[in-house]
Amino acid sequence: MKIISSRTNSRIKSARALRQRKARESSRTFLVEGIHNVGAAVEAGAVIQEIYYAPDLLKSQFGLETVEDATKRGVPCYPTTVEVFNSLASKENPQGLLAVVRQREEKIDDLNPDNYPWGVACVAPQDPGNVGTILRTIDAVGASGLILLEGGVDPYHPTAVRASMGALFRYPVVRVSFDEFKQWVKEHNYQVYGTSAHGAVNYLEVEGYAHPAILLMGDERQGLTSEQSEICKEILRLPMHGQVSSLNLAVAAGVLLYAMLERFEE
Amino acid sequence: MKIISSRTNSRIKSARALRQRKARESSRTFLVEGIHNVGAAVEAGAVIQEIYYAPDLLKSQFGLETVEDATKRGVPCYPTTVEVFNSLASKENPQGLLAVVRQREEKIDDLNPDNYPWGVACVAPQDPGNVGTILRTIDAVGASGLILLEGGVDPYHPTAVRASMGALFRYPVVRVSFDEFKQWVKEHNYQVYGTSAHGAVNYLEVEGYAHPAILLMGDERQGLTSEQSEICKEILRLPMHGQVSSLNLAVAAGVLLYAMLERFEE
Repeated sequence: MKIISSRTNSRIKSARALRQRKARESSRTFLVEGIHNVGAAVEAGAVIQEIYYAPDLLKSQFGLETVEDATKRGVPCYPTTVEVFNSLASKENPQGLLAVVRQREEKIDDLNPDNYPWGVACVAPQDPGNVGTILRTIDAVGASGLILLEGGVDPYHPTAVRASMGALFRYPVVRVSFDEFKQWVKEHNYQVYGTSAHGAVNYLEVEGYAHPAILLMGDERQGLTSEQSEICKEILRLPMHGQVSSLNLAVAAGVLLYAMLERFEE
Repeated sequence: MKIISSRTNSRIKSARALRQRKARESSRTFLVEGIHNVGAAVEAGAVIQEIYYAPDLLKSQFGLETVEDATKRGVPCYPTTVEVFNSLASKENPQGLLAVVRQREEKIDDLNPDNYPWGVACVAPQDPGNVGTILRTIDAVGASGLILLEGGVDPYHPTAVRASMGALFRYPVVRVSFDEFKQWVKEHNYQVYGTSAHGAVNYLEVEGYAHPAILLMGDERQGLTSEQSEICKEILRLPMHGQVSSLNLAVAAGVLLYAMLERFEE
């Protein structure tokens, strides 16, 4: 196949546009960079729309086999020059492998206590690294997925993709308004555990967590609104012994998810 | 005071050099950006060497008072043009306030079970955001500080400074080789709790943690070496129920620090 050597090639321009949220949202695709991450996407059965690789950069046997296997399965794989590849990659010194992957299509109405017994919902998270890290923890504890309420960062931002360590390919991430979430919670009788610096209950004092469960993380600056607090079965507090008023969002989610894992009622 | 309007002014060049690790290490100073962070540094009693501010950007009452108070206490405060200020700031749309702050001077020999009952040690952490986030959690649980073993990122990297939410100004961060650490641990009879994906003990099965304690987080890729494992009283495992093989470093430290907080022996 002829190597793409122009940065203004129309495919390259479309792929590069995926560095912007707007293009990711309109195309429902996103960029996955690097040998490990592209391999994880393939392994997870993510829909790979196309692959770009720079033969002069991609020397790893595993990376080359990924391209070969994808080609066999009919995924278009385009070789590019190093210069063109660098114009696509968001990291310096890229490994020479990048995929355009389709976003998962789950809607909140696809989720129910049978296929989604235990989820995390975050109100408007502001840091893509935190969103990816929370997905990584969701995988670690065996939870079901992530719900993003009221906007916030794009979970398909390159930093979130990297931080998720592949979990983004395997778990549903749905984005809804709080009103839709509230209705869904009610319909399926989810037990919502909120968290707030001023929460009523020390998280260690909860005797047991009930299924189906949602851990609801409030807005990082303002915490849970009164309307959000109203749907919670409990509002948990992590003890804070120093001067900082809160934990990092992904750390707080991690501590609470492991606490829930430990104390779920049979 | 005359406003600095040249990006090549010698003070500005020296301050800008602090964006590089080398200059931070040779001068033992670092940059603190933004109204909130500079305020936290002042409040924590950090040694502020000098302050730069852009009168055309800095409109917050709190920010202006910070400059005024610092001036009264004899800290040199230099007004700059917006263009000069932007050449110093690492973030886009800076708030117009930035301080050059002295690094704390603690050495590991200054630390002992009386002033340092409970610390975290990380082997060569690679992400400055994680280092700052771990300091934030150290503050939250009431631990004593952070020990960086065998190199890794600079804890005074701007991303670490931001992520620590001010904890970097209040807790000792010491950098030593593993050999020095090992000797210090032995001398003071610290109980070292290591963590590894292949650790022998589920962290929940530890009946009690003893003081003085160090939580030792292994290298993110390779975990603890056998030499590092040898000094551990226990090697803890966080249960992993999914496909990812590990948690994010700061999340793992957070879960374990809260578990220790819960189970310290009297």
